[in-house]
Amino acid sequence: MVFGKTVPDVSLNAVANLGYAEARWLSPVFEGDTLRSVSEVIGLKQNSNGQSGVVWVRTTGFNQRNEAVLEYVRWVMVRKRDLDAPAPETVIPDLKPVLHPEDLVIPEGLNFTGYNFTLAGEPHRFGDYEVGEKIDHVDGVTIEEAEHMVATRLWQNTAKVHFDATNRADGKRLIYGGHVISMARALSFNGLANAQMIVGLNGGAHANPCFAGDTVRAYSEVLDKAETATPGVGAVRLRLVAYKHGAPEFALKTDTGKYHPDVLLDLDYWALMPL
Amino acid sequence: MVFGKTVPDVSLNAVANLGYAEARWLSPVFEGDTLRSVSEVIGLKQNSNGQSGVVWVRTTGFNQRNEAVLEYVRWVMVRKRDLDAPAPETVIPDLKPVLHPEDLVIPEGLNFTGYNFTLAGEPHRFGDYEVGEKIDHVDGVTIEEAEHMVATRLWQNTAKVHFDATNRADGKRLIYGGHVISMARALSFNGLANAQMIVGLNGGAHANPCFAGDTVRAYSEVLDKAETATPGVGAVRLRLVAYKHGAPEFALKTDTGKYHPDVLLDLDYWALMPL
Amino acid sequence: MVFGKTVPDVSLNAVANLGYAEARWLSPVFEGDTLRSVSEVIGLKQNSNGQSGVVWVRTTGFNQRNEAVLEYVRWVMVRKRDLDAPAPETVIPDLKPVLHPEDLVIPEGLNFTGYNFTLAGEPHRFGDYEVGEKIDHVDGVTIEEAEHMVATRLWQNTAKVHFDATNRADGKRLIYGGHVISMARALSFNGLANAQMIVGLNGGAHANPCFAGDTVRAYSEVLDKAETATPGVGAVRLRLVAYKHGAPEFALKTDTGKYHPDVLLDLDYWALMPL
Repeated sequence: MVFGKTVPDVSLNAVANLGYAEARWLSPVFEGDTLRSVSEVIGLKQNSNGQSGVVWVRTTGFNQRNEAVLEYVRWVMVRKRDLDAPAPETVIPDLKPVLHPEDLVIPEGLNFTGYNFTLAGEPHRFGDYEVGEKIDHVDGVTIEEAEHMVATRLWQNTAKVHFDATNRADGKRLIYGGHVISMARALSFNGLANAQMIVGLNGGAHANPCFAGDTVRAYSEVLDKAETATPGVGAVRLRLVAYKHGAPEFALKTDTGKYHPDVLLDLDYWALMPL
Repeated sequence: MVFGKTVPDVSLNAVANLGYAEARWLSPVFEGDTLRSVSEVIGLKQNSNGQSGVVWVRTTGFNQRNEAVLEYVRWVMVRKRDLDAPAPETVIPDLKPVLHPEDLVIPEGLNFTGYNFTLAGEPHRFGDYEVGEKIDHVDGVTIEEAEHMVATRLWQNTAKVHFDATNRADGKRLIYGGHVISMARALSFNGLANAQMIVGLNGGAHANPCFAGDTVRAYSEVLDKAETATPGVGAVRLRLVAYKHGAPEFALKTDTGKYHPDVLLDLDYWALMPL
Repeated sequence: MVFGKTVPDVSLNAVANLGYAEARWLSPVFEGDTLRSVSEVIGLKQNSNGQSGVVWVRTTGFNQRNEAVLEYVRWVMVRKRDLDAPAPETVIPDLKPVLHPEDLVIPEGLNFTGYNFTLAGEPHRFGDYEVGEKIDHVDGVTIEEAEHMVATRLWQNTAKVHFDATNRADGKRLIYGGHVISMARALSFNGLANAQMIVGLNGGAHANPCFAGDTVRAYSEVLDKAETATPGVGAVRLRLVAYKHGAPEFALKTDTGKYHPDVLLDLDYWALMPL
């Protein structure tokens, strides 16, 4: 929601979404909460062509009690309104490539010491995952137009390109990147069932566009692990990769350093897991 | 809902829906309310072919406290049950072509004097719209079978033609007119964001059928304006036209007086807007 | 839900779902209830090929107060894990082909003596149905991929074959049998509007696979009738048959004793109806 709400202000007319960083979930959100979001421009750089530039924005989501529930930075490429205006002063924000485990905000009162692995349905815990390990999430979901549009409306993302088949020359509707993230996170349950909640997002790239008819699959790579000050709670840094059916096993980038054309998403996040 | 509930009684086997008039929203409806509707036949006219006729019905929707929440008149063409029966006496009800602003029921306690245009996200107010002005709502939505069927079920409209692809010779499912109205009203947010609530419907025509795959667009025309006795609240009479992608700009009717084949909906309503 | 929740444990990797029996609804379930299910293996039989076998399981669903809300038996064909292991002792459970009316659990406090047939919208009551009578439910619904997947997720059934178009050689997604049951039961409202609630399931077969694009129709056959000890409440045993558009009238089986290829579902249940 907080992401979707920034679309009208930030990215509705953006040329491209370039990246995310320093996203932290700060308070839990419950059914019935009303969220709003505030965005602040924190960086600016004109492109060498003089016609477009990159804008960095830090967005904070608040609930109805004005408690911050989420904050994150994103940057997008936008067109320059007045081509004759002088280039603005370049300001590139100093962003952390990865959140430190101590930056993570763990919900108050969380305690995994009595975690019931039998009821959870999967025995794997913090100690069972090794840094460097890759997990194939096995399942796949074929994407339908009606489903991604319903989901995208729920997130209040109103960008034309997701709803209007006449918007692109090829007549395709682009699947909202948030939908691909959701599908991949849901698929990752098969193998990461006890990665209970996401508390930080270090970065992410929508590597290639996704369209209806694509069958989305996912794998994860364990990038780092850290214990926390909270009883029974460990933090696991995971790379979540969504890819199209048919991609080579654990595909990511090609020799040229670019994403493999069948890779849809490369997401780097911290999740909490019982020790 | 109240419209959909009349389908089994009034229009399930109707040959054609001909029109609406004098629709007024009388009380707000809240989550958890239970609605029912009562219809009264108020007019009757046998067609010259002797095989069908037009029936006018006034329907009132009530909530669980028996408060009227909505009333409206519609007329449909139906087949005659007993072809040998004598023609019934013709009764044509005296319907207002347009509701007078004083007919409109404004929800008790409504007050727009402190309206926050910044939070609303669009600055346009009552004074910014001129009679005769046309507003292009810019966005479009391509219709999917799964979406219109889900919406049509929510309204409890069970007419075969919306759900059963074997019902028409061309194998198409007709999109429920209520879905086209909803899509057009949603699209109109882009340009009429502060047209907060609909209080009256003067009339409406489903000008042409809509099918899955069509991309629906919309424009509005300001037909009239009136101040009301309620603080800060103005009433704007709007024509909402839904059309298929590809129609000429602001298309409505052709030289023959018929609707342009790409026009889907021509709706005439009163909405409330902050002064 | 209780059916869907057994998928991961019982049928995710099953070769085939073979049947249901002795299903009884034991307590009403309300919005906000949390359900869980427990399954017990009650029968076992190795197939003559030595590579697979049949497993009978009795599942009970409980609410958050540990009250049983539903119990049923199902049997599935599964692959043998260790082909060299000796065949287990054959245990075939003693299942009732049909629940006796006295086995049915009627919700406490139910009373149909003041049933309002006018508000219900259909006058037909217990006395109007005759054993042997067949009822054509008239309507049909054409199935969409997006709709059956949304429904199947609601029931928390995660079997690949329903979501992943790459799973079958023909590129089709199999419609979950529970979705076909739901569609058929909904269609049966037209003709059985006062068959208020299902209290027992004697058996059922998913006779043939269903795919998106199929138009589902249904008919019912009255198999038995019984009065109950509850005031105004009768029990009607019904066969509910779902079939694809184009099947012969009241199709069921062919001369060979197999299901007609256009029959999708053959369900045998007890419903309660006002006397």
